[in-house]
Amino acid sequence: MSGSQTLSEAFKQAAYPVGGHGARDIQVLKQAIAEAPGNTASDMYGQGKVIEDFQSKMAAYLGKESAVFFPSGTMAQQIALRIWCDEKGLKRVAYHPLCHLEIHEQDAVKELHQIEPILLANKDRLITLKDVQVLEGEISCLLLELPQREIGGQLPPYEELEAISAYCRDQGVRLHLDGARLFEITPYYGKSAAAICALFDSVYVSFYKGIGGIAGAILAGDSGFTEQSKVWKKRHGGDLISLYPYIISSDYYFDQRIGKMEQYYEEAKELAAYFDGLEGVSVLPEIPVSNMFHVHFKLPEEQVVPILVQVAEATGVGLTNWLRERETGTCYTEISIGDRYAGVPKEKIRAAVRLLDEKMKEAMK
Amino acid sequence: MSGSQTLSEAFKQAAYPVGGHGARDIQVLKQAIAEAPGNTASDMYGQGKVIEDFQSKMAAYLGKESAVFFPSGTMAQQIALRIWCDEKGLKRVAYHPLCHLEIHEQDAVKELHQIEPILLANKDRLITLKDVQVLEGEISCLLLELPQREIGGQLPPYEELEAISAYCRDQGVRLHLDGARLFEITPYYGKSAAAICALFDSVYVSFYKGIGGIAGAILAGDSGFTEQSKVWKKRHGGDLISLYPYIISSDYYFDQRIGKMEQYYEEAKELAAYFDGLEGVSVLPEIPVSNMFHVHFKLPEEQVVPILVQVAEATGVGLTNWLRERETGTCYTEISIGDRYAGVPKEKIRAAVRLLDEKMKEAMK
Repeated sequence: MSGSQTLSEAFKQAAYPVGGHGARDIQVLKQAIAEAPGNTASDMYGQGKVIEDFQSKMAAYLGKESAVFFPSGTMAQQIALRIWCDEKGLKRVAYHPLCHLEIHEQDAVKELHQIEPILLANKDRLITLKDVQVLEGEISCLLLELPQREIGGQLPPYEELEAISAYCRDQGVRLHLDGARLFEITPYYGKSAAAICALFDSVYVSFYKGIGGIAGAILAGDSGFTEQSKVWKKRHGGDLISLYPYIISSDYYFDQRIGKMEQYYEEAKELAAYFDGLEGVSVLPEIPVSNMFHVHFKLPEEQVVPILVQVAEATGVGLTNWLRERETGTCYTEISIGDRYAGVPKEKIRAAVRLLDEKMKEAMK
Repeated sequence: MSGSQTLSEAFKQAAYPVGGHGARDIQVLKQAIAEAPGNTASDMYGQGKVIEDFQSKMAAYLGKESAVFFPSGTMAQQIALRIWCDEKGLKRVAYHPLCHLEIHEQDAVKELHQIEPILLANKDRLITLKDVQVLEGEISCLLLELPQREIGGQLPPYEELEAISAYCRDQGVRLHLDGARLFEITPYYGKSAAAICALFDSVYVSFYKGIGGIAGAILAGDSGFTEQSKVWKKRHGGDLISLYPYIISSDYYFDQRIGKMEQYYEEAKELAAYFDGLEGVSVLPEIPVSNMFHVHFKLPEEQVVPILVQVAEATGVGLTNWLRERETGTCYTEISIGDRYAGVPKEKIRAAVRLLDEKMKEAMK
């Protein structure tokens, strides 16, 4: 078994996994559709009550005129950028170097849409107003990801966000929100999703992160924008005859969990604090601003895997099922708090953290 | 209520709808997952047992080295054409003027892939070897749809297919099969799906036509081709974290119905024969070669709707829920035989056809 398989296996066996809502298995679907009447009609190529009702509900929640359900955020976001580029007649956008479009989509925005992305800021920090000002408006759209997932889920101060939004409007630059984890940041900002979205021309949200659904995304904006997005959705092959398995489950888990974002955020801060002062371990951001954070280890993956396996086996606490090597010879993982955390006894967490500290000290000698 | 709503409503109320498997409602999903164990793990971005097993099963069934599950045929087919165009360094393909890519996809193959399609044959007939020969190999790929849905589901003689395939190989032109209804034509040709697919370099099949699943498609070919297709699948936004609701249901209904294609075909011939000699009514093709055929009426839609509504209300037989107007001032509909037909008493069908004949005669006076 490879190191990552060993860790994944130990996590699966652990009595107390700290992150997530639960296993990603068919039960998630079974539960979501259990109470839906069998004669509920399927959506048909983007039409019908099941899709239209959910789109209206999300448009209202996000404070936008209109919303369209997509099978994936990858599809929704490329399309948003394409529409804004076509509007201005300029195929240039800007986003963070660790943006999902830059690192997880096989250069789709370039290969499928011939859009040139300009990378702002750098891999260690957030985009600031100054970064945007340097462009002097010579882009069609700026994409901001809130929180910036690949650097631990960091957020700019709200005032900075407002300033960037005002600047973009002034410059005729569209502002798009990668809100894959938008629901999760509302407690930190102390703002409604609609208030945050009001700063943006278009917004994407996901239903399988904090919401814990199966898959699916919403793209929202004014109705001129969303009507165009439906044409591109068909072109991408995303206008399926039936999207209801994703819609019904997204709606079900949205209702179940949208009220728990404050709880997940508080729990993330609590768990992150347990790692304070541990030898060779640090947390990013130091104090979480959503339900997520990264844990960095000052040792290579191959040395940290056996430690985390031991912790899981000895204490029953599964801290994570993966580690990612960094160029610096260190490694890190990501923890996202969901329903599971509330069921983990505090003494178990303390025991796990103590053992982690001990083993890291030994290994760092 | 508009004419089409009236007809759709009458069809919905009819005790004996002649086409299809049943209502497209959530029960289709509930039934498909009822016996799947709740702890069955989700696929994860194209990996995992649930997706890999089904892909292997379909690759074997289609006689291809490898297969990839896609959320839609729209996505799968564009990608197939793109791969073959890139291979040859020539962004030109050929297909029928009523090809799905030409009339139902918002010009995606042009807008997203900058591929120039050459339309072969014409709207009233199938592509022949002669049509292909005229191109002198100056395309990367020829797409054939079997059966050609928009002209009633017609098929070329098998020898013509073999000749086209041999010619394309000789000319270095890739041959792609739009097999949205491939399963449905195997009884007419008297060939296995694998035998038919052996004539093609790449094949797409669908799971919500004759199979009656919820959505989803398979793209199959050699493994070099399918590996490339996964990269494009990600770019299109089709590499969802979880596709299992479609995979499990596709697999479930494939097993249920793949053995019934001969029955549907025989029933289609039987039903089509009832329309023989009716005033102002004709069937295309005259003798069906799959489970589908078109019914043409020599009157405009607005005159045929009330007739079909009367037939449904008086006899309980729902012949169709839609009509499409033709430029010639006539109209037509499509009937695809599925599970429902076997439950319709023959005397009901005879009564419906008699009434249709009578009403058409009156209207044609």
